[in-house]
Amino acid sequence: MNAGEFDNWVATQLKAVETALEALVPADAPAGLGLAMRYAVLDGGKRLRPLLVMAACEAVGGDEAAAMRAAVAVELIHAYSLVHDDMPCMDDDALRRGKPTVHVKFGEAQAMLAGDAMQALAFDVLTPDEGMPAALQARLVSLLARSAGHAGMAGGQAIDLASVGRPLDEATLRDMHRRKTGALLEASVLMGAACGATTPEVWQQLSRYGAALGLAFQVVDDILDVTEASETLGKTAGKDQDNNKPTYVSMLGLEESRAYACRLRSEAHAALAAAQLSRTACLTWLADRVVDRNS
Amino acid sequence: MNAGEFDNWVATQLKAVETALEALVPADAPAGLGLAMRYAVLDGGKRLRPLLVMAACEAVGGDEAAAMRAAVAVELIHAYSLVHDDMPCMDDDALRRGKPTVHVKFGEAQAMLAGDAMQALAFDVLTPDEGMPAALQARLVSLLARSAGHAGMAGGQAIDLASVGRPLDEATLRDMHRRKTGALLEASVLMGAACGATTPEVWQQLSRYGAALGLAFQVVDDILDVTEASETLGKTAGKDQDNNKPTYVSMLGLEESRAYACRLRSEAHAALAAAQLSRTACLTWLADRVVDRNS
Repeated sequence: MNAGEFDNWVATQLKAVETALEALVPADAPAGLGLAMRYAVLDGGKRLRPLLVMAACEAVGGDEAAAMRAAVAVELIHAYSLVHDDMPCMDDDALRRGKPTVHVKFGEAQAMLAGDAMQALAFDVLTPDEGMPAALQARLVSLLARSAGHAGMAGGQAIDLASVGRPLDEATLRDMHRRKTGALLEASVLMGAACGATTPEVWQQLSRYGAALGLAFQVVDDILDVTEASETLGKTAGKDQDNNKPTYVSMLGLEESRAYACRLRSEAHAALAAAQLSRTACLTWLADRVVDRNS
Repeated sequence: MNAGEFDNWVATQLKAVETALEALVPADAPAGLGLAMRYAVLDGGKRLRPLLVMAACEAVGGDEAAAMRAAVAVELIHAYSLVHDDMPCMDDDALRRGKPTVHVKFGEAQAMLAGDAMQALAFDVLTPDEGMPAALQARLVSLLARSAGHAGMAGGQAIDLASVGRPLDEATLRDMHRRKTGALLEASVLMGAACGATTPEVWQQLSRYGAALGLAFQVVDDILDVTEASETLGKTAGKDQDNNKPTYVSMLGLEESRAYACRLRSEAHAALAAAQLSRTACLTWLADRVVDRNS
């Protein structure tokens, strides 16, 4: 698969994900709640997590319709976490993907409720009345709930919260990111894999791929926070530095952070090779894009 | 079953629910998150939703271990909603169950994260790796997610938010409460029922019971808000009136609200009779206690 073919695959998947989100996130939820939910999740974002779900499903030859529900669910969790993270009591950010954040546009109370409803909707989407085996539904809910909760994303955010202005050692920083962003990225890969049949060895290698990619994503995020302008990022640049938050760049320096991201990419590629699956091209490309991106 | 026997049943169930919550809500979640989650859910509250789950499970002769997980999950959803509802951008309440609210004790950011993590944990608890059939896991997740999300609790809160200072007609007020508190109470009954085998007719009558009980609960809540002191309620009394929120009392008056609560109790009892199950004594008593309570 060359770069152009991969770009075509991405464009096709993004369109399908957007269509699925359009269909599954309600416009008619009461009292403006649906509008806030749709504002928060439609028409924006890189959709990295949905792409990982679909690429992993393709790698194992899984059920694409089920994977699309998983893709929507994981994006809902990601999007809700951004809504809550942007609020004044957390990061207090006014700009996200180049647009006013949800609480700026709809008010804090509606933003909190929209986030809460998006999390519930994620699990609703994973448990349709028909068309998906119950065992797969339960497996996907379990993977998503664990990666979103105290042992994953929410736990990582709590460490982040407690770390402002404090020096962290590399192990603690890595633990924070493994939970805060890594857990959901890894779960995206595994949810895609769960839509097909896998051996324990394949599962383990895909988990290793997801962990390496998740960490690489965060290292690159920290690099972009200091090297790119707000316009390129679509959010306020230099924020972590201003908040005196520990980052890979503040700890390792810029050059060593870049080298670390490259090593993590190699680790992700090695895991895919070890999995010995026939259709891992999209997963390979995704690891490259995570490291090579500029926003 | 007489009142003393019912009280014994309640005491036994409450102890078991508390033990299950103790075991399933983590003390070791990072950076104080676990402490905030446990503070929010342990050792407090009437546990009406868990009691409804267990009573409905008993009525259909269901799997008690599965029902206990459902009971914990629904209580986690209820408790998280209180944490978020108490925050400054929502009701801004400093007192809950006679204790400082979570954001007063742990800060707003931690309170928001704790609520988010509790919602994720609810779905995690419903999808254990073993010991529960996948079909039941998926069914319970579906019932809980739908009742907690935009079509249920979160949607009702959005209507509530939009209604402050505005006159509502009775139909809109009922729709708000049906979602805001009714949906989760009804889901509690149905989650308990899902732990056993039911006919569509039994399911429908238990749903009717849950809907009537849910509405009665809210009507009585509105009555207590004006008739009881803060010490009895364990929260700030007169709050709805002060906030100029529409309530059953403000719309129907006190006496007519009391009569309405009694009619809803009769409706709940009638639904149980129509279900023709042999062990509905606990559900009957729960409807009585919801209407007769003073806190």
